[in-house]
Amino acid sequence: MQSTPRELVALSRDESLALLAGVPVGQVVFTHRAMPDVFPVNFRLDGDAVVIRVAADSALAQVVGGPVLAFHADRIDEENHTGWSVTVLGRGEAVTDPAECRRIAALPLVSWAGDARDRFIRIAVERVTGRRLG
Amino acid sequence: MQSTPRELVALSRDESLALLAGVPVGQVVFTHRAMPDVFPVNFRLDGDAVVIRVAADSALAQVVGGPVLAFHADRIDEENHTGWSVTVLGRGEAVTDPAECRRIAALPLVSWAGDARDRFIRIAVERVTGRRLG
Repeated sequence: MQSTPRELVALSRDESLALLAGVPVGQVVFTHRAMPDVFPVNFRLDGDAVVIRVAADSALAQVVGGPVLAFHADRIDEENHTGWSVTVLGRGEAVTDPAECRRIAALPLVSWAGDARDRFIRIAVERVTGRRLG
Repeated sequence: MQSTPRELVALSRDESLALLAGVPVGQVVFTHRAMPDVFPVNFRLDGDAVVIRVAADSALAQVVGGPVLAFHADRIDEENHTGWSVTVLGRGEAVTDPAECRRIAALPLVSWAGDARDRFIRIAVERVTGRRLG
């Protein structure tokens, strides 16, 4: 158990996106019934966008066309008190173009939850904030 | 690597709070400069409230007196595709009563980040949503 306080260091956009590209789960932060909500999802970084799968009738599907939302991922080592945290801001857009749907469906992006997540949403990365603790 | 889809099951308030009580890090979801932000923090469940430490001049300190915010924690086992996710909604209040500050300062609540986090904020739990995957 490491108890020395750690320094929090800002990461560049490229460093932040590289970290996002290496993990399979993040959190979508959005507004649902006028309240903040947070939902863990499998995702994939696809160029300059975060791509997630959603069920058509889900609360998450309603982020399409809504205000800017946040997508977050972090990794914290609880033994060593090190880690990183990345938050991107962007707008959710449905992927509707058939060729683009086929391309994205071929990405290794599987939802671990067993509900019918057959829609794709892209969150085009407008702003990135990353921090490293360590 | 388990690839069978998992079921997402709702958790009760008590189950959700018991899970929160067992982890040292969660994410505060708040509005900063009119945009959503997410910040990992050490926290402690203290009765029906989430208590965090903040630096007086930080963005996080500004959640006091603001609108309802979300506090989230999850644990996802990436090998087995199981886990849980809990989100609470509540308002941030500064802890200012000297006796209460002393009581909270004696809790095992250490910030791993080395900045001067000498203020305590309570987020009184108004609503809890919990889900288990597995």
